[in-house]
Amino acid sequence: MPVRGPSGHKNELEMPRYKILLEYDGTDYSGWQIQKQDRSIQAEVERALSIALRQDISVVASGRTDAGVHARGQVAHFDASSMVDTETLTASLNGLLPDDIAAASVERTHDAFHARYDATARRYRYFVTTGYIALDRRLRTRVNSGTDFDLMNRAAEDLMGQQDFSSFCRTQSETENRVCSITRAQWVPEDRPGFFFFEVEADRFLHGMVRAMVGTLLEIGRGLRDAADLPTTIGARDRRAAGPAAPARGLVLEEVTYPNEAPA
Amino acid sequence: MPVRGPSGHKNELEMPRYKILLEYDGTDYSGWQIQKQDRSIQAEVERALSIALRQDISVVASGRTDAGVHARGQVAHFDASSMVDTETLTASLNGLLPDDIAAASVERTHDAFHARYDATARRYRYFVTTGYIALDRRLRTRVNSGTDFDLMNRAAEDLMGQQDFSSFCRTQSETENRVCSITRAQWVPEDRPGFFFFEVEADRFLHGMVRAMVGTLLEIGRGLRDAADLPTTIGARDRRAAGPAAPARGLVLEEVTYPNEAPA
Repeated sequence: MPVRGPSGHKNELEMPRYKILLEYDGTDYSGWQIQKQDRSIQAEVERALSIALRQDISVVASGRTDAGVHARGQVAHFDASSMVDTETLTASLNGLLPDDIAAASVERTHDAFHARYDATARRYRYFVTTGYIALDRRLRTRVNSGTDFDLMNRAAEDLMGQQDFSSFCRTQSETENRVCSITRAQWVPEDRPGFFFFEVEADRFLHGMVRAMVGTLLEIGRGLRDAADLPTTIGARDRRAAGPAAPARGLVLEEVTYPNEAPA
Repeated sequence: MPVRGPSGHKNELEMPRYKILLEYDGTDYSGWQIQKQDRSIQAEVERALSIALRQDISVVASGRTDAGVHARGQVAHFDASSMVDTETLTASLNGLLPDDIAAASVERTHDAFHARYDATARRYRYFVTTGYIALDRRLRTRVNSGTDFDLMNRAAEDLMGQQDFSSFCRTQSETENRVCSITRAQWVPEDRPGFFFFEVEADRFLHGMVRAMVGTLLEIGRGLRDAADLPTTIGARDRRAAGPAAPARGLVLEEVTYPNEAPA
């Protein structure tokens, strides 16, 4: 009999549930979600898991990442028909996955664990440079050398807190509740001149939200948009009020946070 | 008339000399040096410079990097037939170079500057991880999860100082003087568990030297080789005494140091 989670709920088929931590370079993928024609992270992970476990496996992620967006800490869950040796599975998986997707770990979790609904926070970083680069060209966006990061940091303070972020949500999104609570929004200098990342953490993010915020801040940093107008931009609750989406390549889902889990 | 360097020497044709700072991902190249059949960094840089300046340009680097080895701070010099606007040239060059090579900067230098002979120190980093990775898979080598980094650090102290490093030099190398002065040799933990780099600085390096040192240290770290034997290994002055070369992919030429240059 499968172990029960702290909620007392079991998944329907009473199969043991596992939590997988994924890192991927999204450059050559159409995003997390399975698409009919294109390569998706989800399809690759399900394929590798299904081969390793010799059964059809479906995975549920903490959220979908868009085409070209990367992850260092994507979390997903899946159910297996029987108990699995997680160390062996992790090694097998990494042999079966393409080079641009890695399974950092697989661990047993309680059977009511849900990678999407249980997540309490997500943290992203958006990497930029004002210089010419070759080594991390897939993970970093080049920005104007005159960009004022201090000014962007002062403006970013207006993003903090619980607000309706409709102005930073792609219009095609079906979400009705567009209130998010941002707990961190800051440009951080790295150990090399001209290299920065924007770190943002919230309970949830709307579709295209980080890239729209970064694109808007970059316009402020270049003097194309007044920093003082950001509260008005947010208040408009209209995607057209904000700046263009920054390119996908600089964006990395760094971490997904869950409440302390009971031991499986 | 071209400006003279502090040594009073001019290059033969009295052409202004430029110093170029290069970053590259060596994965898809046969190394720095031009090879008949294969892609080389040097050939790409010379091609881009020749197009940008509309003249045949040859470059001389601080040293050759092997196939698959990367650089964040390779330095080379070249002569142009006339004075050049370095800002414009840098921008043009980066448009002409492939994505995996970048010119961080181009600057006028004195006409006696020599990227190879004037260099007083070179600094390399070798990046490893004990985990499964996807994002920097081109720049980092996976090592055994049981690797003892503290033990390797104690052993690395024996590499310090001025010594004959024949044991870490590829036998086909034609160099006669194999004495190098190592001023830094240390494994440094990064901000993520299981991620480390080995940082090594010396006045000069022999062919294949960093990879042979890293390969030898990794054998020590896995318990396959006694740390106390390292002085004997060095003393043997025989490449067969040391461990296997670590893979090229983890190695990055970080910085080349020159004496304070006179303003051009």
